[in-house]
Amino acid sequence: MISQDLFYLSAGELSRLIQKKQVSPVEVVEAHLNRTEALEPMLTSFITCLPEQAIAHARQAEREIQAGKYRGPLHGIPIGLKDLYYVKGIRNTSGTKIFDQFIPGYDSTVAGRLREAGAILMGKLNLHPLAYGPTGENPDYGPMHNPWNPDLITGGSSGGAGSAVASGQCTLAMGTDTGGSVRIPAALCGIVGLKPTYGLLSRYGITVLSWSQDHPGPMARTVEDCALVMNATAGYDANDPASARIAVPDYTKALTGDIKGLRVGILKEFFEAPLDPEVGELVRRAIGVLRDLGATITEVSWPMFEYSTAIAGIIQMAEATAYHRDLIKTRGKDLMPMVRLRLESGFFISGVDYVQAERARTLFYRQSLDLFDKADLVCGPSVPVPACKIGTREVEMGTTRLGVIAALTQYTRPFNLNGFPAISVPCGFTKGGLPVGLQLAGKPFDEEDVLRAAHAFEGATEWHKRRPPL
Amino acid sequence: MISQDLFYLSAGELSRLIQKKQVSPVEVVEAHLNRTEALEPMLTSFITCLPEQAIAHARQAEREIQAGKYRGPLHGIPIGLKDLYYVKGIRNTSGTKIFDQFIPGYDSTVAGRLREAGAILMGKLNLHPLAYGPTGENPDYGPMHNPWNPDLITGGSSGGAGSAVASGQCTLAMGTDTGGSVRIPAALCGIVGLKPTYGLLSRYGITVLSWSQDHPGPMARTVEDCALVMNATAGYDANDPASARIAVPDYTKALTGDIKGLRVGILKEFFEAPLDPEVGELVRRAIGVLRDLGATITEVSWPMFEYSTAIAGIIQMAEATAYHRDLIKTRGKDLMPMVRLRLESGFFISGVDYVQAERARTLFYRQSLDLFDKADLVCGPSVPVPACKIGTREVEMGTTRLGVIAALTQYTRPFNLNGFPAISVPCGFTKGGLPVGLQLAGKPFDEEDVLRAAHAFEGATEWHKRRPPL
Repeated sequence: MISQDLFYLSAGELSRLIQKKQVSPVEVVEAHLNRTEALEPMLTSFITCLPEQAIAHARQAEREIQAGKYRGPLHGIPIGLKDLYYVKGIRNTSGTKIFDQFIPGYDSTVAGRLREAGAILMGKLNLHPLAYGPTGENPDYGPMHNPWNPDLITGGSSGGAGSAVASGQCTLAMGTDTGGSVRIPAALCGIVGLKPTYGLLSRYGITVLSWSQDHPGPMARTVEDCALVMNATAGYDANDPASARIAVPDYTKALTGDIKGLRVGILKEFFEAPLDPEVGELVRRAIGVLRDLGATITEVSWPMFEYSTAIAGIIQMAEATAYHRDLIKTRGKDLMPMVRLRLESGFFISGVDYVQAERARTLFYRQSLDLFDKADLVCGPSVPVPACKIGTREVEMGTTRLGVIAALTQYTRPFNLNGFPAISVPCGFTKGGLPVGLQLAGKPFDEEDVLRAAHAFEGATEWHKRRPPL
Repeated sequence: MISQDLFYLSAGELSRLIQKKQVSPVEVVEAHLNRTEALEPMLTSFITCLPEQAIAHARQAEREIQAGKYRGPLHGIPIGLKDLYYVKGIRNTSGTKIFDQFIPGYDSTVAGRLREAGAILMGKLNLHPLAYGPTGENPDYGPMHNPWNPDLITGGSSGGAGSAVASGQCTLAMGTDTGGSVRIPAALCGIVGLKPTYGLLSRYGITVLSWSQDHPGPMARTVEDCALVMNATAGYDANDPASARIAVPDYTKALTGDIKGLRVGILKEFFEAPLDPEVGELVRRAIGVLRDLGATITEVSWPMFEYSTAIAGIIQMAEATAYHRDLIKTRGKDLMPMVRLRLESGFFISGVDYVQAERARTLFYRQSLDLFDKADLVCGPSVPVPACKIGTREVEMGTTRLGVIAALTQYTRPFNLNGFPAISVPCGFTKGGLPVGLQLAGKPFDEEDVLRAAHAFEGATEWHKRRPPL
């Protein structure tokens, strides 16, 4: 097997080869490192590459596997972490030069669990500074470039994760999602991104943006790979006060079922909001695929959807500014201007505003639950537009123009506000050759239906197999 | 049986007589109405008396019981509701003339459940305006007067409930407790007051003070009576978003056990805070009674106790102002000056302040749970001072002077901040003849241990049998 073949295999495929000792983790890691060496100048996916450590860890994995100590399906698999997951001894910039020299003294829970599972850390991935933005721009470490067209944004904030996975530099990546930061780059880079239920993955050791809306989540090229990462990372952590005390299933088992009779509700309001017609059409066709697979397609109405951006935005602003308040005061001028502006604006949110937003959120949560009276899953586009040019401030959707932040996050934010699980899977390409994502969301802690439907869709389509022209 | 004997019987005692048809609910209600006719000019316990309705409902209860339709231990028992529990068709002032003519169109969940249980509503009880103060002063409907000495405060905000139950005008009452508003008047009036775990009693249809700290709770002259009210009122309510989906036990069963081996932790910091020496001594003796009953007395340390007032205060201010924001702007001048000041101050709490307070609360909650590693219950004084004169702004405790609000709430607020169940039971009298309360607090939803220990203490002492000189 030559190394070119390795860097686009999924974790599921690689692990079967590794377990059978047909491929060594060292070969796998080397194939990906070569890819990074070739692509990094163009894509800027990484803030910190760890080639020597990765090789050393791959050798160790190889030894373990040779010695019969196979840890499981992530053993020897290359993974990248968004550069806000603390890893002991590895600098953690959170995407800003302010923290260029910050080296955490402990592991984030997710990083620790992935290491335990045998995954090989390839490096720390580029992100929108402080994860506070959905485009994947970064003046300090360079903007993230979309593998489908390096002039275009990856989406963010987990943009390095999106481009690294889409371009075969990492098999897997971990992003975080506060307003869509996993699902947006997944959709715009043509990969799979899962935002699990709030509280299912530990936030311990991850730079905060908005406590009550921050969700760690896996990014991969297949749904199965997301399930494998969930198996290794999900579950209670005493170090995260929001961690759910809930039994965690084997998520790969959820993939085996079909979706006959599964009730999938089309989110009516998602198609009434500003939406690029081509994206809308591709998502409608994708829903047709779900119907052909036996799902019962209904329409559901979510009247409070239109308030979700306002409610989530107020909460995010107050929480982000609370977390970064000292930083803003002492290092504001060293921050990307838009991040600085958003952080400074947070000081003008009053306690009354925040409490009112939390009250509205309670109503929103209850209305979100009601959606699932008539549906097992709900669906719509992940992002209303394909990737736009780096630097774009306003995007056009049909006859509407909208600020790029509001546009990119409009469909993803609602699921940060309610904490429900949501996935983006590739569901087609625009005439310009850019990937589009279908979003499927479920009830709290019903990752299984979400993964099952996404996997069934993936099995019936070829979109996830298309590769960027690199 | 003459009516004088009836107004000081407990609900437990009355119900046994009513069930055996030895006493009619009409006699019971008349005895209490006579008491109110005599005492109301002195005590101002009520804002709205409902003598005709109470008699009519008592007659109906009598007919039902005669017809063999006995509803249970609250059937025919006189109860008062703090005048912020909505009752359909009965005006609800929330303690301010601004709402003098407000008539709700629906029942609060608790009021509805009590009616279903057959309790007879005697009237709506006086309170500190908007429940925003711990003294029981009220310029609109008159200050509440302590039955033990009408020159003194009842404590608040559920002051009318405290005085009505202590003076035999109601067998039972419902208060609400956001910073101690059930436990403070219970302690200062010499009765029992229980603040259940947050989420156990529905807040639906009750005027809000601070959503995340508001707790409805029973006030009575015995622990058994509190258990009877809990049986009738506790449990899930879909109309309260914070309502806990939890199975509710028969709380009277908890009363039968002894407390041998129960680990009771003395809250070290409660005795290091400003504390009237006589109150401190009475509470220490009460803890000795628990020891004599077989409890294992330990000492526990709660280092964050000293921050609880600050954290809870910030949260309360933002939430109260959020709820009343329109009222303050349009009717501020019609509010009691101190209530107005506190509400207006809430506008100056920033979203960042609120979020920081919520972060601190998370730490406080975790430290609160840790207390119960070494103890089943924790204990200390309910209030650091006995009742002071109406109008007092500062109270003296040993060598310390403290503002009356901070002083009265210092021991009760921590359990609003963490939401843990806490009870105040009479545990002695000062040389001046004023009642003092022992506070016992438990783990979330462990009302049973709280009630059991309080009941055992009550059974070993005579304090709850002493009556004010009226």
